[in-house]
Amino acid sequence: MGGSAPAGGRVGLDETCPRVHHEGAMRAAVMRDRKLVVADIPVPDPGPGEVLVKTLACGICGSDLHALKHADRFVENQRRAGARFPMDLGRDIVMGHEFCAEIVDFGPETTRRLPRGARVCSVPGLMRADGPRTVGYSAETPGGYAEFMRLTESRLLPVPDAIATERAALTEPMAVGLHAVNMARLTRDDAPLVIGCGPVGLAVIAALRLAEARPIVAADFSPRRRALAAELGADLVVDPAADSPWTRWGEVAAWRDPARAPVLPPWVPGPARRPAVVFECVGVPGVLDQLMGHAPRGTRIVVVGVCMEPDTIHPMLGISKELAFQFVLGYTPDEFEATLGHIAAGRIPTAPLITGHVGLDGVAGAFVELASPERHAKIIVEPWRT
Amino acid sequence: MGGSAPAGGRVGLDETCPRVHHEGAMRAAVMRDRKLVVADIPVPDPGPGEVLVKTLACGICGSDLHALKHADRFVENQRRAGARFPMDLGRDIVMGHEFCAEIVDFGPETTRRLPRGARVCSVPGLMRADGPRTVGYSAETPGGYAEFMRLTESRLLPVPDAIATERAALTEPMAVGLHAVNMARLTRDDAPLVIGCGPVGLAVIAALRLAEARPIVAADFSPRRRALAAELGADLVVDPAADSPWTRWGEVAAWRDPARAPVLPPWVPGPARRPAVVFECVGVPGVLDQLMGHAPRGTRIVVVGVCMEPDTIHPMLGISKELAFQFVLGYTPDEFEATLGHIAAGRIPTAPLITGHVGLDGVAGAFVELASPERHAKIIVEPWRT
Repeated sequence: MGGSAPAGGRVGLDETCPRVHHEGAMRAAVMRDRKLVVADIPVPDPGPGEVLVKTLACGICGSDLHALKHADRFVENQRRAGARFPMDLGRDIVMGHEFCAEIVDFGPETTRRLPRGARVCSVPGLMRADGPRTVGYSAETPGGYAEFMRLTESRLLPVPDAIATERAALTEPMAVGLHAVNMARLTRDDAPLVIGCGPVGLAVIAALRLAEARPIVAADFSPRRRALAAELGADLVVDPAADSPWTRWGEVAAWRDPARAPVLPPWVPGPARRPAVVFECVGVPGVLDQLMGHAPRGTRIVVVGVCMEPDTIHPMLGISKELAFQFVLGYTPDEFEATLGHIAAGRIPTAPLITGHVGLDGVAGAFVELASPERHAKIIVEPWRT
Repeated sequence: MGGSAPAGGRVGLDETCPRVHHEGAMRAAVMRDRKLVVADIPVPDPGPGEVLVKTLACGICGSDLHALKHADRFVENQRRAGARFPMDLGRDIVMGHEFCAEIVDFGPETTRRLPRGARVCSVPGLMRADGPRTVGYSAETPGGYAEFMRLTESRLLPVPDAIATERAALTEPMAVGLHAVNMARLTRDDAPLVIGCGPVGLAVIAALRLAEARPIVAADFSPRRRALAAELGADLVVDPAADSPWTRWGEVAAWRDPARAPVLPPWVPGPARRPAVVFECVGVPGVLDQLMGHAPRGTRIVVVGVCMEPDTIHPMLGISKELAFQFVLGYTPDEFEATLGHIAAGRIPTAPLITGHVGLDGVAGAFVELASPERHAKIIVEPWRT
């Protein structure tokens, strides 16, 4: 695997030896003292059932932006949620959990069912006897902003030859959308509204298209994001600065077959509409309460946007309209695998999503760039890019 | 209906005349300038399809305590929720929406299917051509803290002779519990936990017993309320000051048939437990977030307690554990009727709930008394009591 060895021979990869020597170091963009810097850190040693992979491409996730900006709160939330291995801010942290990689070496007790050189995707979690470890929020299990990672072999999914590496790296963020839509348990009657068309909202839109839950109404202040929403499959995009998303939603959520509309008492304002299922994909304080204020009675709000800060709601709004919230996170292994299949089959238009590429030296700058919704959707980190 | 006429002949009820004359006044405990006072106010005039009823008994609801204490916030919440006829704080307000009454007179366009003198219950809402009006939050449609009310005839339910009047008056608050449990869509596996054993929590416990959703774990700081919870059907009562409700819940929510327990990965702490459905019946700020912090993954939280104030939550807790909220309010007419049937059949042990009786002069004092959970559960107002 000479091609996999980093220039300068920092890692002692030896084609003739089944076990590589990991005395070497690798380059990584690490969070150190709450800042992103490029540093040399040890190449991880694959444990039992684990493989060493070379990172080919890794998307930058909004959660990573949050984790950098609100590191203490991130850790506090991890603890409150019962995480057994929260981020250790006293040590280097290598983020990046949306990756496509190439198998480089095998740890003990591996089956080697996929060969060296195989391109793989994986859910970003190591299975360990003492508990699962997240890949991408520590130096011990570094994520994709590093030249190498270790992954659990049994979780590897082979990437079909037909898919470009960077598209395979979108499996993780797009699986988030599939999971959110699955958790919404949509019925044929439900009419969706997507609030926020960043990567999470776009993934939800793609999944709604796969579920044929139409018409899909999507709202975002950014013209660029609205254009992306349309490309991903939204039927109607709304600029909340110019128009009320709920008004526009109400227009398209009218019953197409009037015979199916329920008969409402005469005092209920406006025409009968299909039930609303809102996907909250913004994740900043205040959005939930705003949705609660505008949502029609009985609306289900699927909370996909990750708000790390405390948020204030008026429960009385939820009570008086009998609203429901479903908070969601991540995806199941099955959903992850299904998403890779959808991307491979061309059922998710991933091309518009990738708007930039950087090497490790560009990660810190990319984090800054991503704060502006006009400039980028998904920036792909290619650790070997020079 | 001489027996129904108030002493002093303030209302010109005339047995020989089918239409009473409503020039008279009636006594009522009214909210005036944010204080409860007894005053003479006009007897309401039943409109088309409406009847005049004499209030026999009316329970005091926690919502009324809230509306008195946080009147401005109550109105603001009504407005935000789209109420077309919010409380008008510039005018007298007659509260009281948990009543049993007696038909005294009929307005125009009534069928008179139930005769004068019939005891009735009703959902506290008038059906009007221009929209529904709540009974119990205005002077125009006064509630049960007054000698007379007007009600929509088609909504009247006859009270079987076997039920004491004051028990029939519990139909409304107990229907709230039935509705909350229906909205929870319990499966056979779900294991309930009731947080707060005031009247709302007790109604939920009674409804859980009716649904045979056991074991029922209930928590309250008040010994009196815990005793009531046990009388209403809780299988295990917990004092949160001495013990964690979630720990005790975990003990009884273990799978009784181990063969039905799912196989969990080795790193999930503790034994597999049945899914948790929590009924939040406290309704004060902070409780929701506390529940989010303690609830196991996948818990459904049914929000029955009416919190009128803004509340702060950490969405990340909900996200990381994929919690769900279902806010609920009130009941359907069918649930209301079913509850009256359950009370009539003795399937809801209502006797322990009634802990006091007052006349109109005692309403203000009763509001004060009810602030202490140790002294009372439900105080019944009997407007004709001297």
